[in-house]
Amino acid sequence: MAPRTIYNEEHEAFRDTARRFFETEIAPYHEKWAEQQHLDRGLWNKAGELGLLCATMPEQYGGSGVDRLYSAILMEEQAYALDSASGFALHSDIVANYILNFGNEDQKSTWLPKMATGEVVGAIAMTEPGTGSDLQGIRTTAVADGDDYIVNGSKIFITNGYLCDMAVVAVKTGNSEKGAQNISLLIMDAKAPGFTKGKPLKKVGMHGQDTCELFFDNVRVPKSNLLGMEGMGFIMLMKELAWERLMVGLMSQAAAEAVFAHTVQYTKDRKAFGKPIGAFQNTRFKLAELRTKIDIGRTYADRCMELQVQNALSVEAAAAAKYWLSDMVNQIVDECVQLHGGYGFMMEYPVARAYVDNRAHRIYAGTNEIMKELISRTL
Amino acid sequence: MAPRTIYNEEHEAFRDTARRFFETEIAPYHEKWAEQQHLDRGLWNKAGELGLLCATMPEQYGGSGVDRLYSAILMEEQAYALDSASGFALHSDIVANYILNFGNEDQKSTWLPKMATGEVVGAIAMTEPGTGSDLQGIRTTAVADGDDYIVNGSKIFITNGYLCDMAVVAVKTGNSEKGAQNISLLIMDAKAPGFTKGKPLKKVGMHGQDTCELFFDNVRVPKSNLLGMEGMGFIMLMKELAWERLMVGLMSQAAAEAVFAHTVQYTKDRKAFGKPIGAFQNTRFKLAELRTKIDIGRTYADRCMELQVQNALSVEAAAAAKYWLSDMVNQIVDECVQLHGGYGFMMEYPVARAYVDNRAHRIYAGTNEIMKELISRTL
Amino acid sequence: MAPRTIYNEEHEAFRDTARRFFETEIAPYHEKWAEQQHLDRGLWNKAGELGLLCATMPEQYGGSGVDRLYSAILMEEQAYALDSASGFALHSDIVANYILNFGNEDQKSTWLPKMATGEVVGAIAMTEPGTGSDLQGIRTTAVADGDDYIVNGSKIFITNGYLCDMAVVAVKTGNSEKGAQNISLLIMDAKAPGFTKGKPLKKVGMHGQDTCELFFDNVRVPKSNLLGMEGMGFIMLMKELAWERLMVGLMSQAAAEAVFAHTVQYTKDRKAFGKPIGAFQNTRFKLAELRTKIDIGRTYADRCMELQVQNALSVEAAAAAKYWLSDMVNQIVDECVQLHGGYGFMMEYPVARAYVDNRAHRIYAGTNEIMKELISRTL
Amino acid sequence: MAPRTIYNEEHEAFRDTARRFFETEIAPYHEKWAEQQHLDRGLWNKAGELGLLCATMPEQYGGSGVDRLYSAILMEEQAYALDSASGFALHSDIVANYILNFGNEDQKSTWLPKMATGEVVGAIAMTEPGTGSDLQGIRTTAVADGDDYIVNGSKIFITNGYLCDMAVVAVKTGNSEKGAQNISLLIMDAKAPGFTKGKPLKKVGMHGQDTCELFFDNVRVPKSNLLGMEGMGFIMLMKELAWERLMVGLMSQAAAEAVFAHTVQYTKDRKAFGKPIGAFQNTRFKLAELRTKIDIGRTYADRCMELQVQNALSVEAAAAAKYWLSDMVNQIVDECVQLHGGYGFMMEYPVARAYVDNRAHRIYAGTNEIMKELISRTL
Repeated sequence: MAPRTIYNEEHEAFRDTARRFFETEIAPYHEKWAEQQHLDRGLWNKAGELGLLCATMPEQYGGSGVDRLYSAILMEEQAYALDSASGFALHSDIVANYILNFGNEDQKSTWLPKMATGEVVGAIAMTEPGTGSDLQGIRTTAVADGDDYIVNGSKIFITNGYLCDMAVVAVKTGNSEKGAQNISLLIMDAKAPGFTKGKPLKKVGMHGQDTCELFFDNVRVPKSNLLGMEGMGFIMLMKELAWERLMVGLMSQAAAEAVFAHTVQYTKDRKAFGKPIGAFQNTRFKLAELRTKIDIGRTYADRCMELQVQNALSVEAAAAAKYWLSDMVNQIVDECVQLHGGYGFMMEYPVARAYVDNRAHRIYAGTNEIMKELISRTL
Repeated sequence: MAPRTIYNEEHEAFRDTARRFFETEIAPYHEKWAEQQHLDRGLWNKAGELGLLCATMPEQYGGSGVDRLYSAILMEEQAYALDSASGFALHSDIVANYILNFGNEDQKSTWLPKMATGEVVGAIAMTEPGTGSDLQGIRTTAVADGDDYIVNGSKIFITNGYLCDMAVVAVKTGNSEKGAQNISLLIMDAKAPGFTKGKPLKKVGMHGQDTCELFFDNVRVPKSNLLGMEGMGFIMLMKELAWERLMVGLMSQAAAEAVFAHTVQYTKDRKAFGKPIGAFQNTRFKLAELRTKIDIGRTYADRCMELQVQNALSVEAAAAAKYWLSDMVNQIVDECVQLHGGYGFMMEYPVARAYVDNRAHRIYAGTNEIMKELISRTL
Repeated sequence: MAPRTIYNEEHEAFRDTARRFFETEIAPYHEKWAEQQHLDRGLWNKAGELGLLCATMPEQYGGSGVDRLYSAILMEEQAYALDSASGFALHSDIVANYILNFGNEDQKSTWLPKMATGEVVGAIAMTEPGTGSDLQGIRTTAVADGDDYIVNGSKIFITNGYLCDMAVVAVKTGNSEKGAQNISLLIMDAKAPGFTKGKPLKKVGMHGQDTCELFFDNVRVPKSNLLGMEGMGFIMLMKELAWERLMVGLMSQAAAEAVFAHTVQYTKDRKAFGKPIGAFQNTRFKLAELRTKIDIGRTYADRCMELQVQNALSVEAAAAAKYWLSDMVNQIVDECVQLHGGYGFMMEYPVARAYVDNRAHRIYAGTNEIMKELISRTL
Repeated sequence: MAPRTIYNEEHEAFRDTARRFFETEIAPYHEKWAEQQHLDRGLWNKAGELGLLCATMPEQYGGSGVDRLYSAILMEEQAYALDSASGFALHSDIVANYILNFGNEDQKSTWLPKMATGEVVGAIAMTEPGTGSDLQGIRTTAVADGDDYIVNGSKIFITNGYLCDMAVVAVKTGNSEKGAQNISLLIMDAKAPGFTKGKPLKKVGMHGQDTCELFFDNVRVPKSNLLGMEGMGFIMLMKELAWERLMVGLMSQAAAEAVFAHTVQYTKDRKAFGKPIGAFQNTRFKLAELRTKIDIGRTYADRCMELQVQNALSVEAAAAAKYWLSDMVNQIVDECVQLHGGYGFMMEYPVARAYVDNRAHRIYAGTNEIMKELISRTL
């Protein structure tokens, strides 16, 4: 309804590439990903070849040096294709950012080019069993031993966990009373002895996403893999939080749009009591309500993205986008399931997959309750 | 949270004038307006002197020839002052527009300059007892008689009705089966014999607004007062509907902001069980939810206003703004009443007045149900 | 839908009397009560003559010695008549209960018979400016002076405050660190020197209810007017809280039923676009949703009432009834206003009065937030 | 909160049996059922041995001749065990009822005893691809051919479809313009040539329930298998609709209680930021809101059950119970997922399974929109 203005022609060309990739390589096989609980590993390399990975990284590190609107497009196209299996956004827009922002030259040139080609799949490992959004409670330790750290502990809910070749891992390196000062970030090689992966977790949705547990049993990590400085982990994790939260908002918004489009079509095609169900006033009013929320959400998402590109996105606006848009997509999808009747409960229908997939958005990247906490602090 | 961008310095200078006017001339006397059920008539002239009336009209007709962002500012400032007594927006941005858009030169130069000074207070009279949003059902007739029409009938819910000097009145001039083709618009002088006004209606809120019934008993109206052509009334009424609906959205949005600001302050000042009520998690989360809705609403309102100024506001975006923002302000105010406890029920508190005033926004200018109807047609 | 079972024939006979009284003596004059901000004083005596006051008090004290289902009926009939001016329930079911439960023989025989005839109008005065639901923070003091207390302070939001002849007043008689132990209850004669009443407060609704402030300036109260023992006020106030909260639930429920009935009728009578608005699917679905909530609320209210009569109503069930039913009536009324369109904003319509009246139910007798607090403690 | 009163000691003894069965035989293997998409067939026989199947059937047909409170208990215990795999309720309380209500002596003595032992698993087959709640649109035909009907067509969303030995199938036997008069019910043997079953459908939830498609390719059905009379199918299907809808309400209510209990426990055990998450005000208020809804729902469900046993349950009360309770359980579960954080998205947690399972309740047995339609007709 309100036209979008944030993209230019080059962005749209990138969108074409992304769309074709999701439509031909990913979407048709969603059942396969769901059953094996991960993407085929080779798709990461294909995505890399097409320039879809790490596009915002500088060219010297294998990226395209473009702005984050390209990242937004990739997330939109993934959502439009109703794919929840690929973890490209986390890899390119979270993991790679940590290395770019805090890595030394050696770390950057070692890891980023391989991440851009898809040779290395990256993960970020913060959460532990028993700690949710409360990072200070982690128990995974890294104890100095010569030129190495010895890492022991485990991590849970790790996106890309099963396929990852590398993980940026939050560890405890100190014993200060100020818990935040004990946290450091290590780049861990997934092939290191003692680094093992659990089986992908059985989840409500996102069945093709290889979320799993990681276990560290006396894993030896060279000190040169320390990101930034000891005890700075907490602060480093803060730096891009606004962006990481907005990302969830962007994915939520695009998913809402995709599901809505499917549903409008369904209500036109499907008949009950002698007319299309879209002709009933209840259906029309529901769709109008959803359409309105989606348009309002889109305007806000784009405005936040505009501010993000200007480095002007506030903590509270990002939190608002994360919380409101993820709540919104769940409301939209729930209503759309209902409009589908029994078919809305069948996994072959996009709306059904969206129902189980999108529930996670209200939880990860900081629960929506944490978002409200943050917003309330700015009042 | 997301900064506003639609206004420039000249707009803000106009805002200062508007703000001072509302703060000094209107707000302090809200009880007086409520008791007498209308503004002091002289305030219209003061507003005129300050250039607050009909600012968007061309200079040749007494206006300032400025864009509608000035109108938006006036509505915002009225809402920030929590005034519901003055009907300036209807006068300047609806009634004057009809005359400007469809009046002949004579009509324009007769009425517009006086409307700009406040010498003439304008009203628009469409709704009748028994017709709500369904204009085709009106029964007020205008029967040609020589150079005049003889008008009989009555109108209800007329904003500015008690103080008005002139009203643009929807009348039935034909008997076509296509009801819409029977509607014409007449400029009626409120001093004409047979034109009488009911007492201001007792309403849930907006107690200072002089909403009333108008009665026409063989009122003689010169044919030269016909606006546009016979039978074109319905089409003329359509022309600015998007703008008129957006206006309700803008007023809703600004009211929500004002009430929220009062409430945040209240929760800081007011203590219960030994601490400010704003320190309770329930209060903080509620405020965060309201803050988020308000920020999202503001972004949408401004985006619609931007499109309005570019003459690019779609019917459905305007309908969405009207419906969603008016629903929103009611949710906001209701929660804010609750956060005020018993004081939220006392009319001396701004939040209490906002509670009774803003309920109307979901009803007039087309009920929110009509908005959903309109939006659903575009799917 | 689910038939009611809690009343027998005698109850229904009492209902007839109550109904006739509200329909003939109270309802037709609602505008009068609203304008003068209180009932005519003589109506209390009429109600007394008809046995409508203090019916649950023992016969020796002027009551009818009946169960609280009679109280429930009186509240229902008041609500069905959409009256918010009379404060009979507070008088009979709260104030009289304090005296019956904690008064000595002398106090009971002095006050209760006069309360039953309406010769004495009773009030209860707890809340003060600056204390809401937090009783321990009160500042009104009673200092012993010979056989008297000297009372200084003020109270706010006092139902029946303007017409009251007597008030049970919470005062501070001690300075213990445990605030609750400082509270005592005094029976204060409203004619005592130094006892003054503010003007009835201007409220969002309940315009005919004479809520006001009370001021105590060195009021001399005989020690024989102490209810129970010094320092026991807090505990005495607790005793009937479940019942007092349920009362709000009962009034809310009955109001919802009344407004719904008016609205169903309205949607049958009122036409738009050529058919009754009740024929539109949106209207039908809304009404079905409201009907469902009302039936579910009714079942719960009656079940709680059944438990109340058996002295088996739990704190949390009473809190749930208060909170859920008062929220419910507000949702119902809000939707019903919307179904009335512009007429829903006009005070002559029952739904409009219900809109402004019922907002208070979510606030007084402990805000709904306090109710949630209480319920959460039982988990 | 409000104590239950509908069960006596004998009911509770039956509950013990049911509980033990679900706790030992069904619940521990939920992953197995989910993976194979059906229960082990032998469990039906075990359930039969324990008297859990067809308990309300007369003793002469293998039942226990007890009232439907026993059925309610079985559904409650299934829900408390968070089992969604077993289709006992449909078998005993829907399919068997059709045969008991409309079957002739021969049909009753042929099928009911075997259903009671579990030797025969029953299904009911109404819905077809392309017809949802609109039964008159079915296309499966039964054409008379000597002493048989020849049945062609297919059915979808058939509970117990994969394991069923028999199905009561709605077929078209006529070509009247009044569609309802064309519908007949046939008892079809699943082993008949031409009767084939699809693979169990992949659904959002209820993964262990063997819902599937049935296909009929020239299936020969003896005319003696006609239930009732030709053309009476529609009317027969109506007879127990109130009960069938209430069943969904009962299952929803019990599921809400089970999930709530798990969640309260979780919020006590789980810590964040140094205290149990149940200690945060937001958690406490949410839980209080859920507790309230559940108590209110329970009271209504029990009241409806009471009426059902008295054969006094109205169409609209049953519709209200179905619609409101199924909406309610979804709200409860959604909030409970959120309170679980990331674990709420993990299928090993009961709340996660409840999230995907309970979504169906708002859709089947007549969508909640159909329920609103029905309720609105009674206004």
